[in-house]
Amino acid sequence: MNLTEFIEGRRDQHLAELLEFLRIPSVSAKSENKPDIERAAQWVADHLRVAGFKTVEIVPTNLHPLVYAESLEAPGKPTVLFYGHYDVQPAEPLELWTSPAFEPQSRDGNLFGRGTADDKGQVHIHLKALESLHQLHGKFPVNIKVLIEGEEEVGSVSLWDYVQNNKEKLKADALLVSDTAMLGRGVPSITYALRGLDYYQIELTGPVRDLHSGVYGGAVPNPLTVLTELFAKLHDKNFRVTVPGFYDDVAKVSATERKALNKLPWKVKDFERAVGAPAYVGEKGFTIVERLWIRPTLELNGIWGGYQGEGTKTVIPSKAYAKFSTRLVPDQNPRKIAKLVEAHIRKLLPKTVHCKFEVLSTGKPWAAAYQAPIFQVAQEALQKGFGKKAVFIREGGSIPFVAQMHDTFKVPCVLIGFGLPDENAHAPDEHIFLENYFSGIKAIAHFYQDLASL
Amino acid sequence: MNLTEFIEGRRDQHLAELLEFLRIPSVSAKSENKPDIERAAQWVADHLRVAGFKTVEIVPTNLHPLVYAESLEAPGKPTVLFYGHYDVQPAEPLELWTSPAFEPQSRDGNLFGRGTADDKGQVHIHLKALESLHQLHGKFPVNIKVLIEGEEEVGSVSLWDYVQNNKEKLKADALLVSDTAMLGRGVPSITYALRGLDYYQIELTGPVRDLHSGVYGGAVPNPLTVLTELFAKLHDKNFRVTVPGFYDDVAKVSATERKALNKLPWKVKDFERAVGAPAYVGEKGFTIVERLWIRPTLELNGIWGGYQGEGTKTVIPSKAYAKFSTRLVPDQNPRKIAKLVEAHIRKLLPKTVHCKFEVLSTGKPWAAAYQAPIFQVAQEALQKGFGKKAVFIREGGSIPFVAQMHDTFKVPCVLIGFGLPDENAHAPDEHIFLENYFSGIKAIAHFYQDLASL
Repeated sequence: MNLTEFIEGRRDQHLAELLEFLRIPSVSAKSENKPDIERAAQWVADHLRVAGFKTVEIVPTNLHPLVYAESLEAPGKPTVLFYGHYDVQPAEPLELWTSPAFEPQSRDGNLFGRGTADDKGQVHIHLKALESLHQLHGKFPVNIKVLIEGEEEVGSVSLWDYVQNNKEKLKADALLVSDTAMLGRGVPSITYALRGLDYYQIELTGPVRDLHSGVYGGAVPNPLTVLTELFAKLHDKNFRVTVPGFYDDVAKVSATERKALNKLPWKVKDFERAVGAPAYVGEKGFTIVERLWIRPTLELNGIWGGYQGEGTKTVIPSKAYAKFSTRLVPDQNPRKIAKLVEAHIRKLLPKTVHCKFEVLSTGKPWAAAYQAPIFQVAQEALQKGFGKKAVFIREGGSIPFVAQMHDTFKVPCVLIGFGLPDENAHAPDEHIFLENYFSGIKAIAHFYQDLASL
Repeated sequence: MNLTEFIEGRRDQHLAELLEFLRIPSVSAKSENKPDIERAAQWVADHLRVAGFKTVEIVPTNLHPLVYAESLEAPGKPTVLFYGHYDVQPAEPLELWTSPAFEPQSRDGNLFGRGTADDKGQVHIHLKALESLHQLHGKFPVNIKVLIEGEEEVGSVSLWDYVQNNKEKLKADALLVSDTAMLGRGVPSITYALRGLDYYQIELTGPVRDLHSGVYGGAVPNPLTVLTELFAKLHDKNFRVTVPGFYDDVAKVSATERKALNKLPWKVKDFERAVGAPAYVGEKGFTIVERLWIRPTLELNGIWGGYQGEGTKTVIPSKAYAKFSTRLVPDQNPRKIAKLVEAHIRKLLPKTVHCKFEVLSTGKPWAAAYQAPIFQVAQEALQKGFGKKAVFIREGGSIPFVAQMHDTFKVPCVLIGFGLPDENAHAPDEHIFLENYFSGIKAIAHFYQDLASL
């Protein structure tokens, strides 16, 4: 029996087991779910053993345990490190779920439940692919290290400590991650680039205390007004970021690559339907796909200050706040960009306010040479699993861990996602298209198998 | 015994009674204080009777009772309507009070407690002035109507209904109000003008739902950015409001009046110490006093949208909100201004957002001809009470009721305030300078007495 047939014959069994995994409410953000987190880690460890791993560890951390497994019984063959996470986002608001978040339900070819797409469903694809290979051949085709964490949705702090302290142990020839999305339904995709990120917060203080806007209005600085005037100056009329030097280190994307990205089977109509804005805007001279994937941005993520309750309060507040972020592309350096942004803001601000400037988080951009052989292997494996040619895509979001791993181990990172953009990761009614789950197991099994010949 | 000596001899008695009034926590905003509100209304009614009023009514309303009293036993003499309120702001945050809000305490010549300045202390000044006159002469020198409401701090809805339904009953030759502040310590003041107000709220909607700022950032409209760009356009570089037609109906203030306002015993240093901003800004071509009192403004009172919690959330929100207001001066019409503001905003906004525009409240500006005889009488009465010449001032804030009464009855309104600008009305450690309270009783008693000869 070949690999594809073997996996096909176990659809019901795989799905039943996935439901079991999904029923554990492994919400990392809520302390009340701590026992569930422990249970999920144990579940992953148990199923790694069943899949064929002899060395399986549950690693205690300051917060939630990591699960580590390895099988190094393929001498002369490549070693790959697979990363995933067993924790999930909180399910709230519960009332917006059609069926309960932790009682997974199939409807119209989709499986609904928290973690179906992000990331338990995708972790399970790897578990079942590896198990199938082991059952068929009595061993794994390559050397495999598995690292499944429980803090992805709360910042991965323990993960990074663990990696730093176990560099030798985790060494591999490639990193595999399945925590991204496909370009669209029927389009198996390999993500070869992510944007980086600086996330900032500013606090502007004008008057030392809140003032009555009637008594004082017209003769004192209003930090809310200063805030609006500041952010209005951070984009020019072509929607380019006005921070001097912001674009200096942006690596040129070749005409060939831009052409390939713009030719992807991706429809503006679908994008606009998903967003639903009355009209669109973006940096002049670039297509939507380019704006999303190869161009850096500056976006406000939150603003607040003064009275926000019902009705009226005639106040000139002492303080105004903004959270904002810059998405970065190769070869922008997050530290350098943060300094440029702060300097520009301090230069733009009038003397009427004090400004506290903080960088809350940071992550480097990442892009792989997707012409490398391992990417071709991945593309062929996806063809075997989906019966369709896989495309190479970039993503606008950031996974700081990927850039960190790439910088630490200097090895290719291959991101193969089986979610779809509209599957509500982090939102109510999260789901996964079941055919992508089943095809994913086949594709990933072929991928591990074909890596042996790399 | 003359009037001044009579009142001087009753200082302890007056103060003791004021403490009794202040101990009733008549917070109009909180339903748990409903019994206290009722008790305060009863207290006012009882003390009006003691002061010499034979007709005293507690008028039930949809919310908190009004107290009405009248004495029309001075045929041929003028009739005045005195307005005040017995309700107070909530005392929270309680921990910021040096002594408990409803256990009034004297320190360094000040009486601390909620309602000392706004407005129970000032209402009590009138009660004791009238009582003193009645005790001395066996009757009031003029015809007097008294209207003390219990909803001033929550919008005066019942008051205005009552006025509209009782126009004949409330008819008078002048309206007296003591709910404002003196220009400064040792400067008895008569307020002859107030700014009006339009208070607005806008809601901007870009995308139909919150979006991931990595996945979508750079190619979709961000309503927070649009909001900042909008408000940055509402003032020009001279800090003038850019709404076309905004200044068209602003009545010219005479050179004489401007000169008088600028000559008031008022110090920029005190103003700047109270505000505490790093630097100041305002409409070019006008002094601080003019910016506060005779010029219209547009001020942001609150903004919000997106993520405002701890740490980071990479969101492009669907919606952005702002509350803002225009302070208006004679002869600006609030309705007309609201239309101009809405039209200008709709014109400035890009097609990338939908805008919901609301006018939440509105009030007309008011200015009296302070050369009218009744203002001279008030000035002389203040001289008698304080031993200092009273000044004529305007105020930047709004008391819509004054403009409404002025429009309804077409009579002079005389605003004599005994608070000081730094006495923390609406804030913790509210207080009144006791000498202003005692001098106020004398001044107001003389005022009622001297009105007989008008």
